[in-house]
Amino acid sequence: MNCALISIGTELLFGQIINTNTVYLSQQLNTLGINVYYHFTVGDNHQRLKEVLNYALQNADMVITTGGLGPTQDDLTRETIAKAMGKRLVLHAPSMKRLESFFRDLNRPMCENNKKQAYLPEGSIVLQNNNGTAPGFIIDHEGKVIISLPGPPKEMMGMFTEGVMEYLQEKSKATIYSRVLRFFGIGESALETELLDMISNQENPTLAPYAKEGEVSLRITAKAENDVKAMALIKPVIEEIRSRVGEYLYSEQDEELAEVVAKQLMEKQITISLAESCTGGLLAGRLTAVPGISKCFYSGYITYSNEAKAGMLGVKNATLEKYGAVSEETAKEMVMGLRKKQNSDLCVSITGIAGPDGGTDEKPVGLVYIGIMYKEQLTVHRLNTFGDRARIRNYTVLSALNAIRNAIK
Amino acid sequence: MNCALISIGTELLFGQIINTNTVYLSQQLNTLGINVYYHFTVGDNHQRLKEVLNYALQNADMVITTGGLGPTQDDLTRETIAKAMGKRLVLHAPSMKRLESFFRDLNRPMCENNKKQAYLPEGSIVLQNNNGTAPGFIIDHEGKVIISLPGPPKEMMGMFTEGVMEYLQEKSKATIYSRVLRFFGIGESALETELLDMISNQENPTLAPYAKEGEVSLRITAKAENDVKAMALIKPVIEEIRSRVGEYLYSEQDEELAEVVAKQLMEKQITISLAESCTGGLLAGRLTAVPGISKCFYSGYITYSNEAKAGMLGVKNATLEKYGAVSEETAKEMVMGLRKKQNSDLCVSITGIAGPDGGTDEKPVGLVYIGIMYKEQLTVHRLNTFGDRARIRNYTVLSALNAIRNAIK
Repeated sequence: MNCALISIGTELLFGQIINTNTVYLSQQLNTLGINVYYHFTVGDNHQRLKEVLNYALQNADMVITTGGLGPTQDDLTRETIAKAMGKRLVLHAPSMKRLESFFRDLNRPMCENNKKQAYLPEGSIVLQNNNGTAPGFIIDHEGKVIISLPGPPKEMMGMFTEGVMEYLQEKSKATIYSRVLRFFGIGESALETELLDMISNQENPTLAPYAKEGEVSLRITAKAENDVKAMALIKPVIEEIRSRVGEYLYSEQDEELAEVVAKQLMEKQITISLAESCTGGLLAGRLTAVPGISKCFYSGYITYSNEAKAGMLGVKNATLEKYGAVSEETAKEMVMGLRKKQNSDLCVSITGIAGPDGGTDEKPVGLVYIGIMYKEQLTVHRLNTFGDRARIRNYTVLSALNAIRNAIK
Repeated sequence: MNCALISIGTELLFGQIINTNTVYLSQQLNTLGINVYYHFTVGDNHQRLKEVLNYALQNADMVITTGGLGPTQDDLTRETIAKAMGKRLVLHAPSMKRLESFFRDLNRPMCENNKKQAYLPEGSIVLQNNNGTAPGFIIDHEGKVIISLPGPPKEMMGMFTEGVMEYLQEKSKATIYSRVLRFFGIGESALETELLDMISNQENPTLAPYAKEGEVSLRITAKAENDVKAMALIKPVIEEIRSRVGEYLYSEQDEELAEVVAKQLMEKQITISLAESCTGGLLAGRLTAVPGISKCFYSGYITYSNEAKAGMLGVKNATLEKYGAVSEETAKEMVMGLRKKQNSDLCVSITGIAGPDGGTDEKPVGLVYIGIMYKEQLTVHRLNTFGDRARIRNYTVLSALNAIRNAIK
């Protein structure tokens, strides 16, 4: 069974609001084993809505609309769907009663235009709205299903869970279950190359890689009668992937790298201290986003200037002069100074050129040194990355997290 | 001129990511006076992409696609568009050169599949990608325009502003000009109440308030022949708003609060030091995102534990014991200790309970103290905010930035 979503509302076409309804419905439908093939958005325009609705009905088994069920003139969904399905709008007495009592309870007069919300396509299953005025409806007609829900997310979600979910569970036979693996240190194309035979010959489960800023995710999706059977299909695939590119794989549960690292530190009771220059607190900010990290993380230094590197961490002025603030030697002295001051199990220093200015031929923007001292082992990683200031800083934070992950493995 | 947007990527149909590209492009196109009639989303499926592309081309003057330009097998946009427009894919030598040097610079091998990114529809205007590998392109053919952009938001936005904006400005005749005012410290409904008569009686320009996490924006949009005439319509409206709610208005240019504050510090040559507890480096990270801030910001402390507050900033153990780490007294001693150590013009301390644990009846989650010492003036601000850990930390950072803004006004 496959499905098209149609979002109706001119405010979406203006980019004034983000279409979260589509995200919610897509997630729900996929979990129910219903393939979402299309998202469409149209404005409050009768002609274009009609045409898109017809296109969707021709190309999908089921169409779910959100929006356009309100009381005002530009709310056209009921009329347009009724016409497309060759049905009249008829009064739904219980809905009219609910509307009347709704306004009575609010002690507000009910406007004439509110009444039109109680007129629904003949033969529909009516969906009660427990969070607003507009009822929704389901039409099941000649092998096609149309489900029409209100636009406000709260009303839509309430109606979906209370009135639609069960209906769809009965319609759909399969479950779609997916797991997202996350990788760092390997590009999207390199990952695909490593897994090409698995991706090409995929049927069930399917594999889909996609790139996020500085990292790659791989979604493995299986279709089966239930979760347990779907997971049984996915498990051997994950094992094979682990054996091929396991060194880059940092999460099998779609977690953030910072979360994975913070959890490992907490689990292994490793204390950590940070001294950041070009990332200016970003790494600390990312780690402290994870609740409970105060068990392992006590303090950090942001040593942005040379004076701070010397004064707060004891980096020698001679080192700064001879090698520069962005150098292996400075990263090393930063992390050694940090260890001396804090005596944490793991110390991390970062120094680099985030740009846009400050680069030279010899030391271009994107050059970063990360010092890691775990127990008595000191390593300095050198990065040559690219992009604007925000990308370089973000990629540096991810690289540092990955270096921590490897150090404490 | 009207336009359809097509987002390509199965991850969107799974609801795994939010389609922010569509929001961005819709806003930009509307500003350029181009009507957005449709948003379409399809997966990485050749047949469905082809059909939707044809539908879009039949119903709109211009089609903008995002996604599917990557190096992997499921990236089908180039091929599908070329076929739909009856064009061959041909090697674009400068793009191949860029790809080669990109991988050379990274010191990574270039996979075979990367090469396909340099094959573009014959006769296209090629759009260089300054934030990634995939070039985009524009085809202007028999009265229809197709613009194809990469999917990662950063690459898409960079390419749009650098390569597409000017092209579209020439295509479109009317100008829609808008200014976004940003406020902190006033809620959306309170702002609307203050400006109700202006919002209700709007025609040209129009006023649209919208809430972002912890702040409110107000978009003022005018339609005119050119920027100068549009700005003449907007100017008196801004003046009126300034006279009513000017104390909350921190930017008339849609800037981030951190950017506004960093610029003021740089302009006024005020040096700043930070000591962060519950925000754990987030404030420093936000300030150091602004290029050039190294002129004013030299160093910061992340004093997450009591030991760090005592050891690094000299907060008295007696104070920590008597009043607790989250207290006016501790915030005060933190900022005084910071001043003593760093001697900056402006010192800021933050201590609070970000949750989810650690709250009590007396000191609930969301209680935060911000100490500000500017020259010889010391103030401690007390916040009682709500929400999850991420929201509390973000709101605390915004509040601290706003306190800095007010202190140096």
